[in-house]
Amino acid sequence: MELSEDELIRAITRVISSSEPGLVVGIGDDAAVTEPGSGQLVLTTDLLVEGVHFERGSISAHDLGAKAVVVNLSDIAAMAASPRYALVALALPQDLDAAWVMELYGGMRDACAEYAVVLAGGDTNRSELIVVSVALVGEVAPGRAITRSGARAGNRIVVTGSLGAAAGGLALSRQDAGNASAALSQPWGRALVVALARPSARVGEAQLLARCGATAMMDLSDGLARDLSRLCQASGVGARIALDRVPVADALVRGAEHLGVDAIDLAVSGGEDYELLATIPADAVATARTELAEAFGVQLTDVGQIVEGSAMRTVSADGQEQQLEPAGWDHFAGG
Amino acid sequence: MELSEDELIRAITRVISSSEPGLVVGIGDDAAVTEPGSGQLVLTTDLLVEGVHFERGSISAHDLGAKAVVVNLSDIAAMAASPRYALVALALPQDLDAAWVMELYGGMRDACAEYAVVLAGGDTNRSELIVVSVALVGEVAPGRAITRSGARAGNRIVVTGSLGAAAGGLALSRQDAGNASAALSQPWGRALVVALARPSARVGEAQLLARCGATAMMDLSDGLARDLSRLCQASGVGARIALDRVPVADALVRGAEHLGVDAIDLAVSGGEDYELLATIPADAVATARTELAEAFGVQLTDVGQIVEGSAMRTVSADGQEQQLEPAGWDHFAGG
Repeated sequence: MELSEDELIRAITRVISSSEPGLVVGIGDDAAVTEPGSGQLVLTTDLLVEGVHFERGSISAHDLGAKAVVVNLSDIAAMAASPRYALVALALPQDLDAAWVMELYGGMRDACAEYAVVLAGGDTNRSELIVVSVALVGEVAPGRAITRSGARAGNRIVVTGSLGAAAGGLALSRQDAGNASAALSQPWGRALVVALARPSARVGEAQLLARCGATAMMDLSDGLARDLSRLCQASGVGARIALDRVPVADALVRGAEHLGVDAIDLAVSGGEDYELLATIPADAVATARTELAEAFGVQLTDVGQIVEGSAMRTVSADGQEQQLEPAGWDHFAGG
Repeated sequence: MELSEDELIRAITRVISSSEPGLVVGIGDDAAVTEPGSGQLVLTTDLLVEGVHFERGSISAHDLGAKAVVVNLSDIAAMAASPRYALVALALPQDLDAAWVMELYGGMRDACAEYAVVLAGGDTNRSELIVVSVALVGEVAPGRAITRSGARAGNRIVVTGSLGAAAGGLALSRQDAGNASAALSQPWGRALVVALARPSARVGEAQLLARCGATAMMDLSDGLARDLSRLCQASGVGARIALDRVPVADALVRGAEHLGVDAIDLAVSGGEDYELLATIPADAVATARTELAEAFGVQLTDVGQIVEGSAMRTVSADGQEQQLEPAGWDHFAGG
């Protein structure tokens, strides 16, 4: 990098507006100072590491910056809270050029702007690997946060959007060059790559589900099977999922054969969809589905029911039941 | 690591208390929920990366965890704010054992407890390098944050404690085994190592300096020369430092010859002291010095004066003046 740390901070300050509403002291001092809201504070942090969460060549700097913000927004959303302030700590190898770093910040700025979040401060360090660490401060009316622990037997299990496209994008990135190139010539191939590189956070959708009476909620970062097992464990309940109702992403259905993957398997066990998983009273599902479609154009799917006990089971279209294993779940295992 | 991510989170939850005052939802959900205070929010983040900020063998997991918290506390302190909530994002290689990770969390817990900070949440990821990223949320009465930009010509420049010991510890760690071992057999050698591994954050001291009328303040993380240049630039002023007044750490004075370093040079240009650098009206220095000694047993030293313009100069005991370069400053250069 041809810039010193101080030069980099000045360049960043030009990319990031420092006169945002609510921001009393912005980037460039020891810490940021912001005006508080009236609610409870909601706090989360998550980082992306090169070689684990991404490869330098497989995602643009802009998408990487935006994604680092969005995965944190998704956690704030899952509490039915409103995101307010973002902080960024970067570790960057010296061989990155300044333009790449500016593009990274541009991606963070654009994601913050899209969700009305103020990028309040940050820190830049050297490292051998790229690390993008984001912390987010949000706000929620007292007592209105939706945790993972409120699911009750009889609640329906719902998910927003469709599942498996990001896992399909990951499968595509692991194909040999010829297969990957053939996939990328198809609309479904590009859709899978975009799903992995440019996730959305369901901020408004989560607040709507909370108003509709959601009893528990979380975001789907590690796949339906694993994340549902966490929700069930936190709530002390079990679950029964109708496999044929799981909303598999269209692009994944179309590309599964080419990619050599099983679409329903990826939709249940693949991560990084950042859709919402929620439990709501049975009589609230229809209203929630209608309102979500009208307000956001987002589909809500009833995929099953919370049950007594701790067992998680799937039911296939032909009525076969099978235990749903949280990790490394394979829907063929009991076939 | 022999633990899965979920097992690790459960183990961490046993190390970290989840029923802290002010914490509504603690570790284990998508995000933490906390009760807000009445002041403005003060936000900061900083990360430590293996191979850049530390080597795995050169610092204990406990010290590393504590230091990752303290360097952030120091930034909150430098705004004259009170730290409240910490968030931790970790990236950990798989070959680390769970006991090491628990010790790391133990260090973070102990540092949080010492400063009455609630460890509110976090996230654990895999990586090839250890990354410890901490974000801190603090609080300050509206309008009372002390930034870097308030220094005015005529203000005295003061620093807390003594300088250069952490840089001495770094120099010691770079000695060959025989030299390092001989140094560690001396009290000064152990003092230098402890200064680097176990810094303190001057939280109460900063609030006292604010009450005494500090006009600008920051923490000394990158060395007096570089950090003073940032403060001067933010305030649009220059500075004149009396070299013979710079409070060089005793252990560094004693060990300098053995380590082959110049003590005053390290005290001026070495980083990681985490002492406070502040500017205050001349007539407030004596009171601040007395109160800081009485309340905290910490020395406050008047090292120079803020002047008009933008030049930073040093004055040696014999009256020789020299320009103070923010980076790679060498006090021999003009000798």
